[in-house]
Amino acid sequence: MAVRIKTILGVSGSPRKDGNVDKLLQIALKEAARTQNIKTEIVYLRDYKIENCNSCFACCTDAALDKEFPCLSFNDDMNLLYPKLAECDGLIIGSPVFFGSVTAQLKAFMDRTEGLLRYSKSKWKYSLSNKVGAGLAVGGNRNGGQEFTLQTIHYFYFVHNMIVVGTGPELTPGCYLGACGTTFPEKGKVREAILKDDLGLKSAKMIGRRVVEVIQLLGR
Amino acid sequence: MAVRIKTILGVSGSPRKDGNVDKLLQIALKEAARTQNIKTEIVYLRDYKIENCNSCFACCTDAALDKEFPCLSFNDDMNLLYPKLAECDGLIIGSPVFFGSVTAQLKAFMDRTEGLLRYSKSKWKYSLSNKVGAGLAVGGNRNGGQEFTLQTIHYFYFVHNMIVVGTGPELTPGCYLGACGTTFPEKGKVREAILKDDLGLKSAKMIGRRVVEVIQLLGR
Amino acid sequence: MAVRIKTILGVSGSPRKDGNVDKLLQIALKEAARTQNIKTEIVYLRDYKIENCNSCFACCTDAALDKEFPCLSFNDDMNLLYPKLAECDGLIIGSPVFFGSVTAQLKAFMDRTEGLLRYSKSKWKYSLSNKVGAGLAVGGNRNGGQEFTLQTIHYFYFVHNMIVVGTGPELTPGCYLGACGTTFPEKGKVREAILKDDLGLKSAKMIGRRVVEVIQLLGR
Amino acid sequence: MAVRIKTILGVSGSPRKDGNVDKLLQIALKEAARTQNIKTEIVYLRDYKIENCNSCFACCTDAALDKEFPCLSFNDDMNLLYPKLAECDGLIIGSPVFFGSVTAQLKAFMDRTEGLLRYSKSKWKYSLSNKVGAGLAVGGNRNGGQEFTLQTIHYFYFVHNMIVVGTGPELTPGCYLGACGTTFPEKGKVREAILKDDLGLKSAKMIGRRVVEVIQLLGR
Repeated sequence: MAVRIKTILGVSGSPRKDGNVDKLLQIALKEAARTQNIKTEIVYLRDYKIENCNSCFACCTDAALDKEFPCLSFNDDMNLLYPKLAECDGLIIGSPVFFGSVTAQLKAFMDRTEGLLRYSKSKWKYSLSNKVGAGLAVGGNRNGGQEFTLQTIHYFYFVHNMIVVGTGPELTPGCYLGACGTTFPEKGKVREAILKDDLGLKSAKMIGRRVVEVIQLLGR
Repeated sequence: MAVRIKTILGVSGSPRKDGNVDKLLQIALKEAARTQNIKTEIVYLRDYKIENCNSCFACCTDAALDKEFPCLSFNDDMNLLYPKLAECDGLIIGSPVFFGSVTAQLKAFMDRTEGLLRYSKSKWKYSLSNKVGAGLAVGGNRNGGQEFTLQTIHYFYFVHNMIVVGTGPELTPGCYLGACGTTFPEKGKVREAILKDDLGLKSAKMIGRRVVEVIQLLGR
Repeated sequence: MAVRIKTILGVSGSPRKDGNVDKLLQIALKEAARTQNIKTEIVYLRDYKIENCNSCFACCTDAALDKEFPCLSFNDDMNLLYPKLAECDGLIIGSPVFFGSVTAQLKAFMDRTEGLLRYSKSKWKYSLSNKVGAGLAVGGNRNGGQEFTLQTIHYFYFVHNMIVVGTGPELTPGCYLGACGTTFPEKGKVREAILKDDLGLKSAKMIGRRVVEVIQLLGR
Repeated sequence: MAVRIKTILGVSGSPRKDGNVDKLLQIALKEAARTQNIKTEIVYLRDYKIENCNSCFACCTDAALDKEFPCLSFNDDMNLLYPKLAECDGLIIGSPVFFGSVTAQLKAFMDRTEGLLRYSKSKWKYSLSNKVGAGLAVGGNRNGGQEFTLQTIHYFYFVHNMIVVGTGPELTPGCYLGACGTTFPEKGKVREAILKDDLGLKSAKMIGRRVVEVIQLLGR
């Protein structure tokens, strides 16, 4: 019997190439990929041109019924991302902490998924429904908004009717809600800072394993 | 082949018998029980004598290894509740909103489950791991802390390594995070107030269905 | 003795001109302006071209020391907004709820204020310190993220060392955290929907009065 | 001219005498007391017998009009605490993190202040209105709920129409929202653990200074 390969998609909301969020997300996904039949991919939102949702609600009208993509206002790189969202089995979204929350870049990506929701009239409706989601956050301060950033990501998952998981069954000296790192005492600008954060590194591996675990429990 | 009956446990943190949280929780559980092979039970915490955790950490020491119950400090009615927690497949915790969060009564119950966590040395370790959890909140004001109360319940679930779900795939005019009602414009004291809150009633049914759905997806 | 005129700045993060957030924010500011010697102004972020922060941290280096504006990466319309932020005595930020949180447009504005923080090396350092802040949120669902959106705005205020206030001393059937409306049962697209939301309207007036009250208590 | 002495009240929600929350709170209050004309006091809730609010709402009825104390259901040690709350100028509430939030003991104290709210018919109405509040949290894990615990304390303050502040203008490697410590890598049970947490210690001093600063800005 053919075993279906399951995919976990990582989404980095960091504006900095090879920055600490990228690194931590790569570690999470690499850990997930250690399991047989799990394939992973990371998209770095800075590589995509994404307009801000203008709240036109066209995706929720009949105008969206027969369209190739859910968003009728913008024909931009979100059209490269919608299929990846629709096809994945699990989602790990990561962000640096900016003012206690996700980056504007990541929020723009989130806002543009309106056409994947229950309100959509497009064929993309429910694209993320019942998929497994976990979050990842890196802050320049130790307790500088990582929890709230993870909750922001979780809120996105709940709106999409996803199944939300934290860091799994192991001892969790880092964080329960998700992968959680800090660049402190290094400056946030230092691109290797996260590699010294043992708790952050551990929590990244934990969510990698956790998303795999729950995908498998779901028999997806 | 024998089909395993799955159980969803409701926990009411309301101090008021037959109050609005009780009613809404009953509606949620009744909706869940409409599915074949789903059994439900509600415990009303006000009927149980529950001491506050004194942070002795005995449950996390070898002293807990061979004990019947996880808590070594108190021999109280939590010992009636631990088995119910261990045996359920899904958990729906409900609370009135007190100062934006759960009641002290509910928090006392939560705090006393330390011995079910990963840190426990007792046989109750991981009792709630991988179970499905949803939340329910009723506030006297329209936006008076329901969301934060649901997040407080979710935090409890994440710490217990549970799988957290919201209100499901349907249109959600009420709340994404969980069942969410308000007694406004009636006074909170009015015991029938919630029955006039259509959105609250709908969201309660939705989480009942949602917890069943994810339990079934998990093949539990 | 000359009385100093105090200014309250409203910031609308809505992409929709004359939409429900605009209307509710106008009501809040109009209420504030009923007090003598209070001047108000609203900026609509959609009228400003604002790049996303690229996390260059230049504002936190010596390169920022002698510059006219805090951001060295972008010379865009934020340079019109920094002076308004620096000059106001109180700030009321409003957003429609998008996925439980503020819009990407609003987040972009927030992220670009890094150079006003304690980390800044520019003359804009501490521009918002000790100013009074309140939040405003409008959601398409009744309990659809308004609270969390207000907390997102509050987080921004806390990072800026501001003084954070809610809806004031009156009866608060709407929300304690801030002005909180819903367009339900109308569709979010309906531009007059908020005018039917009595609780939302009331809460908007309340934060208008509350910000004035605390500015006056501060003797600013 | 006589200078009015201003009082900052600390409230410890820890069940453990001389535990890490006590120590951190003492440091915060000691720092505050370094300012002339600032007096501080700490109450340790474990020393007080406090019943859980039974949601009788009597404090919001005419029955409360002429009573000495706001709560009509219980004549317990809250009656020793109401005057302290009414008399203070600033409030610093601290809690260990239990399941991501405050302890049940602390929540019981919070819930019993209903009669100090706008809904009260007692003479204690508005007792906390316009006072300055800051929070303090200590978690056994690094990012184990400290932020959410601080937000729980903030919610209480917002409901009471207080003025909410964070950690002040200094560099904040610890946390913006409030004083924030961790006993990690020591076990939570170790009573000296927090003394090794430099960031936690610093943030405690910072909120001590911050509450004083805003009390003085208010001219109280």
